[in-house]
Amino acid sequence: MELRKVQSMATAREKLVEATVGKVFQSEKVSLMESAGRILAESVISPAMVPDFRRSTVDGYAVHAGDTWGADENAPVFLELVEEVNMGDTPKKALKPGECVYVPTGAMLPECADGMVMVEYCEAFAVNQIAIHQGVAKGSFIVEIGEDLQLGEEILQAGKFLGPGDIAVLASLGISEVCVYQKPKITIISTGDELATPGEEKKMGQVYEINSFGLCAMAMEKGLDVVHVEVVQDTESLLLIAVKKAMAKSDFVVVSGGSSQGKQDITKQVLDEVSCPGVFTHGIAFKPGKPTILGYDAKSETILVGLPGHPVAAMMVFELVILWYYRQKLGIKEGITVPAFLESNLPGAPGRETCQLVELILDKKQDFYIARPILGKSGSISTLSRAVGYILIHRNKEGIKAGEKVQVHLL
Amino acid sequence: MELRKVQSMATAREKLVEATVGKVFQSEKVSLMESAGRILAESVISPAMVPDFRRSTVDGYAVHAGDTWGADENAPVFLELVEEVNMGDTPKKALKPGECVYVPTGAMLPECADGMVMVEYCEAFAVNQIAIHQGVAKGSFIVEIGEDLQLGEEILQAGKFLGPGDIAVLASLGISEVCVYQKPKITIISTGDELATPGEEKKMGQVYEINSFGLCAMAMEKGLDVVHVEVVQDTESLLLIAVKKAMAKSDFVVVSGGSSQGKQDITKQVLDEVSCPGVFTHGIAFKPGKPTILGYDAKSETILVGLPGHPVAAMMVFELVILWYYRQKLGIKEGITVPAFLESNLPGAPGRETCQLVELILDKKQDFYIARPILGKSGSISTLSRAVGYILIHRNKEGIKAGEKVQVHLL
Repeated sequence: MELRKVQSMATAREKLVEATVGKVFQSEKVSLMESAGRILAESVISPAMVPDFRRSTVDGYAVHAGDTWGADENAPVFLELVEEVNMGDTPKKALKPGECVYVPTGAMLPECADGMVMVEYCEAFAVNQIAIHQGVAKGSFIVEIGEDLQLGEEILQAGKFLGPGDIAVLASLGISEVCVYQKPKITIISTGDELATPGEEKKMGQVYEINSFGLCAMAMEKGLDVVHVEVVQDTESLLLIAVKKAMAKSDFVVVSGGSSQGKQDITKQVLDEVSCPGVFTHGIAFKPGKPTILGYDAKSETILVGLPGHPVAAMMVFELVILWYYRQKLGIKEGITVPAFLESNLPGAPGRETCQLVELILDKKQDFYIARPILGKSGSISTLSRAVGYILIHRNKEGIKAGEKVQVHLL
Repeated sequence: MELRKVQSMATAREKLVEATVGKVFQSEKVSLMESAGRILAESVISPAMVPDFRRSTVDGYAVHAGDTWGADENAPVFLELVEEVNMGDTPKKALKPGECVYVPTGAMLPECADGMVMVEYCEAFAVNQIAIHQGVAKGSFIVEIGEDLQLGEEILQAGKFLGPGDIAVLASLGISEVCVYQKPKITIISTGDELATPGEEKKMGQVYEINSFGLCAMAMEKGLDVVHVEVVQDTESLLLIAVKKAMAKSDFVVVSGGSSQGKQDITKQVLDEVSCPGVFTHGIAFKPGKPTILGYDAKSETILVGLPGHPVAAMMVFELVILWYYRQKLGIKEGITVPAFLESNLPGAPGRETCQLVELILDKKQDFYIARPILGKSGSISTLSRAVGYILIHRNKEGIKAGEKVQVHLL
């Protein structure tokens, strides 16, 4: 077995990207409604103008704007009502000077009309005669063709997470099928003889199995498809069987094992044995999460991951390496960070990138955020529940002083 | 029909809360894994200490700390190895002075041990004799009983959105069933004769139906259960049938109709007719979204909502009234806001609360955010896709000046 050589976080990420350059994440066509919450796989070019006809933004009368100039509350102008347009209908003829047409909000204007007068400023004066009590400028209360979306315009970029607003935009274009990435498939394996299952009795000295639950919740939240979750006994042969089986159906196989050196070595050996080119990262200079293993099997296009046994470390490495990779590969934008001032001095770990969980507290004037580090001995699972985000301390930095500006990555 | 009297946003919210005081959102027990992404209905009190035994945070030797004092690289102390503890096991006997016990990361310490020496500072010197090359303080590398979670401590509050960290905490306590709120059931009805279905041909003058898609995506994203979506022709009788049917199976019935006055009146009439006490809000002094209708039927415990026909207005009112109500009623914390400086002057709407969609741009030094208003004529659906959040302008404020600090609510 080769010697463990710890890599920086940046190097580990780089190696993962390089090693998996041939890996393809497949796309699929789904219905518009099913595409909500998914990742767009192909940029969307507008197939039409929106709107594709001149629309009114108010209930009122379409006019030649010039006809209304000078009209006011006391001195109306009188126009002949020649038509009433219904929603969804096409006006029958072009508007002539001296005429007006009733148009409800959202409906189509007759040709040659160049202004709308709100119904509040109009009254029926005689049969087919409307008194207009307000002068309007050209273009008033009209949305022109293509004013919202232009034909041929790039509307949404590949890699975009499709939120409600995007779904609405796609609907407005009449798009009913969307090309999104298939949800990457992930198998999560926890190893450990000492693990008890939540809900069951546990012996003194045992701990409950946490990682499969926490990692599964995290993967689902981020849009991955958890195809299998398994707790495996701590032997090389059983782990080997589980990993091989998982590789046949997963883009990612994640093994989180005990934190002891011996267990890490078993995981490393197994992940290396089943894959080609194999393991390329064994140890990341990252706190918490040093014993991270990364490998790749080119034939099955499976990314193999060994995570620390410690739940907080496992989840942070999952976020910073695996989910980072997934976002990077699919072109998904990183979430926004929140600038804040650090509440208390925070030591770094020389030579290691440090991830510190924090709470965010709005200052009294509500002008800015204070980032409060959530301190807890290694092993404190409660920290992850209280955190709203984390800050990263560069490996060359000794630490961050109280009052310094930090960027908080939201969890 | 009573006259329309426009309410402030605050009054409309108040009335909604008051009118629905008797409404109960039911809870249900689900498995730990299924509870991810749900809302906790009962606070969780820790049923145990975590950890419930003294654990080591390193691979190494449990010692009487005092035995190691004075030891260094050149002058080790020698301790008798009396046991090797395996993960999940209970050490056989208490540790005596002069003895040591091998304990891997996460395993249980023998009684009376009060320090751990990392394996890196130890070497096997003779059979069952370990040379210790480092002095350690009392408590080194040990997690004490209850150091993470105390028995009887409130761990998670009712109303908490259960994220991955919470799932991990619950697992660590051995909890396998969680009491969460049932997903509130919502029916979304779009009305309009002029609406074409995305994917189908549309006639000139028609527009594609947007609201059912946008609102459905929004409801699903926020954890509601969309039980039915329907597009109904613009007649009172058909709308009446659709709303009545929906009330039998929904907590919320949302009708989004045309924006014209006549259509709004039909919606108001129908929602009032089917319910008792009926409609209590008809018009909110809010931009965009004035023609909002709120009502309640006490017998079926259904909240009835008429939203503007305009998609952006409909979605903003849905967020600010309906989803606000849902969060408030269940005790869900509001999402964090991001402080930013406004990029350009922004007029308010006198007497009306204004909601302005914005993008967030990090300044060059990455010290703070600039909020850039997304301007677009009323009707511009593309604005919602580009926005990361919105700011609210109070109805008593004339506007906000460029450079002023604003709080951006993330979408």
